[in-house]
Amino acid sequence: MLDPIETLKDYIRFPSVSTDRAYVDGMQGARAYAVNLLQGLGFAVEVVPTELHPIIFAQRLGAPTWPHVLIYGHYDVQPADPFERWTHPPFEPQVRDGRLYGRGAADNKGPTIVHMAALARVLAQYPQLPLNVTYVIEGEEEIGSPSMAQFLEHYAERLAQADCMLVSDTGSPNAEQLVVTTALRGLVDLEITVRGAKTDLHSGIHGGAVYNPLQALMEICAGLHKPDGSVNVPGFYEDVLPLFAWEREQLKRYPETIDSYQAILEVPGFYPANGLTPLEAVRFGPTLEFNGIGGGYQGEGSKTVIPREAFAKLTCRLVADQDPARIQDQVVAAIEALCPAAVSLEVRRGPVAGAYLVVPPGRSNTPPDQAPALAQAFQSADRAIQHCFGKAPIYLREGGSIPVIADFHKHTGLDAVMIGLFTPMDHLHAPDESFDLTLMNHAISAFERIFCDIAGVS
Amino acid sequence: MLDPIETLKDYIRFPSVSTDRAYVDGMQGARAYAVNLLQGLGFAVEVVPTELHPIIFAQRLGAPTWPHVLIYGHYDVQPADPFERWTHPPFEPQVRDGRLYGRGAADNKGPTIVHMAALARVLAQYPQLPLNVTYVIEGEEEIGSPSMAQFLEHYAERLAQADCMLVSDTGSPNAEQLVVTTALRGLVDLEITVRGAKTDLHSGIHGGAVYNPLQALMEICAGLHKPDGSVNVPGFYEDVLPLFAWEREQLKRYPETIDSYQAILEVPGFYPANGLTPLEAVRFGPTLEFNGIGGGYQGEGSKTVIPREAFAKLTCRLVADQDPARIQDQVVAAIEALCPAAVSLEVRRGPVAGAYLVVPPGRSNTPPDQAPALAQAFQSADRAIQHCFGKAPIYLREGGSIPVIADFHKHTGLDAVMIGLFTPMDHLHAPDESFDLTLMNHAISAFERIFCDIAGVS
Repeated sequence: MLDPIETLKDYIRFPSVSTDRAYVDGMQGARAYAVNLLQGLGFAVEVVPTELHPIIFAQRLGAPTWPHVLIYGHYDVQPADPFERWTHPPFEPQVRDGRLYGRGAADNKGPTIVHMAALARVLAQYPQLPLNVTYVIEGEEEIGSPSMAQFLEHYAERLAQADCMLVSDTGSPNAEQLVVTTALRGLVDLEITVRGAKTDLHSGIHGGAVYNPLQALMEICAGLHKPDGSVNVPGFYEDVLPLFAWEREQLKRYPETIDSYQAILEVPGFYPANGLTPLEAVRFGPTLEFNGIGGGYQGEGSKTVIPREAFAKLTCRLVADQDPARIQDQVVAAIEALCPAAVSLEVRRGPVAGAYLVVPPGRSNTPPDQAPALAQAFQSADRAIQHCFGKAPIYLREGGSIPVIADFHKHTGLDAVMIGLFTPMDHLHAPDESFDLTLMNHAISAFERIFCDIAGVS
Repeated sequence: MLDPIETLKDYIRFPSVSTDRAYVDGMQGARAYAVNLLQGLGFAVEVVPTELHPIIFAQRLGAPTWPHVLIYGHYDVQPADPFERWTHPPFEPQVRDGRLYGRGAADNKGPTIVHMAALARVLAQYPQLPLNVTYVIEGEEEIGSPSMAQFLEHYAERLAQADCMLVSDTGSPNAEQLVVTTALRGLVDLEITVRGAKTDLHSGIHGGAVYNPLQALMEICAGLHKPDGSVNVPGFYEDVLPLFAWEREQLKRYPETIDSYQAILEVPGFYPANGLTPLEAVRFGPTLEFNGIGGGYQGEGSKTVIPREAFAKLTCRLVADQDPARIQDQVVAAIEALCPAAVSLEVRRGPVAGAYLVVPPGRSNTPPDQAPALAQAFQSADRAIQHCFGKAPIYLREGGSIPVIADFHKHTGLDAVMIGLFTPMDHLHAPDESFDLTLMNHAISAFERIFCDIAGVS
């Protein structure tokens, strides 16, 4: 029988950093390890080549009439640097104080082993379990899933045979209170560069005559929000789906207050978020954020220069039902309208991704035409979590983006039951990443019940 | 007799880069060379130690009733890098096409040799020339003259015995049309840092709740100008001396049009400079310019981060009679008033320097109580330039700052006749710096006439 902790430790030992070519052996090792586990569970495994890191596509199929779940995960991890800030080396996993430490322990190797360990236990009890299972484990999630679009296109038909997706690549507030994530925000990426004279200019000799590109850039960017905190782009909020009444009720159960949130962030205050509270704003509202700005002299002291150019990198987080391509056009148009004629403007349009939203059964005032199999998966998850963690899950939208979930939906029509197995204590993407072993234990039990429940053997 | 070109070449061969400790021998060599030249002209030379590079203080004194001029210059030069962009090595001077190439050829070694060569010729003809001359040649001009304040304090009494200063550390539009600079702008230096959360935040997880420090910074900075281009700081223009009618007339003689200026800068347009034309704005108006901004992710592509802090470096150029300390206070107060409460603000106050203004005799509608000796120096310069260059000089304010001139005035009451011997073709502070030898020749003749005229021997 698969020992979850030892298996996860072995899996972590392969340094599968997708962004760095130096880790190609680690990627290959982690991939082979996952393939081997799936084959051990009786899966037919296909390693689908891509331009960079292959995708694991595995199926355990029986009768077409059986229920069919699709499990999505990723075998790649974030870079581990700065190495010196780890208590132990990041790819030499260690258990301390009920946690397993190592890069990828939580994101996303731990949850993958939770799913596999649960399935292994169920299959040990019911070798003929009447449940079709498809696995998609990609190797490029941490670099934006560049190969998934083509994969989804080619495999759409086979993937669409599933009833729903199970995903554990989202978070919960702590190890006792799980969240089932009902939405992910979309993303629009842009970079603008403002240019003035052909070279940097002496601010004494030419100051007063030329439109300083730094000033122009900052005036443009400052014009993109209103005093109430809303985004000052015509049409930006047109397609925003208002939050449902039940979402506000669910949020009340969230074990975090505005005060505790402020204490965690250590901010002097919150943003005036257009009528939303801070805890609502990060889940239900779209944003326009500046991620980086630069221009002119950035060294010690001062240099009296009027720089020839300045740039700002910005991204919007979108909510349902905003159309990402249309929002990108609207933001670009607003920027162009704000740009003074005395400077030139260049806009780089980065990638866009739509928001994803699924309404759990019985949760909406205006319930969508929901497939019964999806409704059953949600109900199975709800019951299992309540039983194994002692509390019903909270159904909440999340502020982050996993563009591949919306892409799955677009290509296959599948919706996702997203059970959050990360907590803020896990330090995702940071030194000393870890996974809570009590949570792991409870989660394996919960997924055992979910698989049995969906298969109808419980 | 002193050969101006060979002397200047020898002077340039000492690489007197004041900012770089590696050039301490070059500094020493240039200083010794200048001292030797002055001693050869009969000066009593004192090398005044400072914390960094000593100041040359030299005097040729006769009767106290003689007229007395103080000549200011500097023996240090800008760094020569990037070396690879020089046609010849920067400290191996070369004559090509009527120009002498080398670092410091124009700024400020050429003008210093002009003054000395002229004085040498006059003294050869009139060994008993009834003219007291004081030289101050500092070695820290290119690094902001940090030792001059203390020197001026200690030597104030001896320096104040002069009637006026002669300075050639400013520019003219070309080698035929000289400018006598009547004002220099002052400077106020500030850096602001805006801080939000204690660490960089994930823009998905926290976007919408926190006030992005980049956004706050840009909103603050964008609030510092009005749409008409004026500086939006209460009290900023209160003490600004309006330009004199004769200054607009003088500017009409300047051989540059708005169109030719735009072509040189290659800008799409000009700044709306609060009612001034571009050529007026750089001379007569105060400014608030951003010299550098930075914060967040500045690498390739995008990173979805809400950075914990962002900074902007800014400087104001001041005109007469703005008080630099008061302006700094006003700008800081305006920044504080614009800063949202949800972020914290840190202000670094950099150095300040006042503007300098001198009104040439007969040029003001409301003439100041001008010393006859200063008036005579201006008139001597006017006549000499008209005779040797064929055109009367243009009397114009300059946009740049030489804080030490205002400091001289503050400590000694002396005013300066600033005859511009640089032209835009000289590439000051850049590779292939050069000095126009025809201009040099005419300027030596002009200074011969100026010295004789002031001494009353012409």
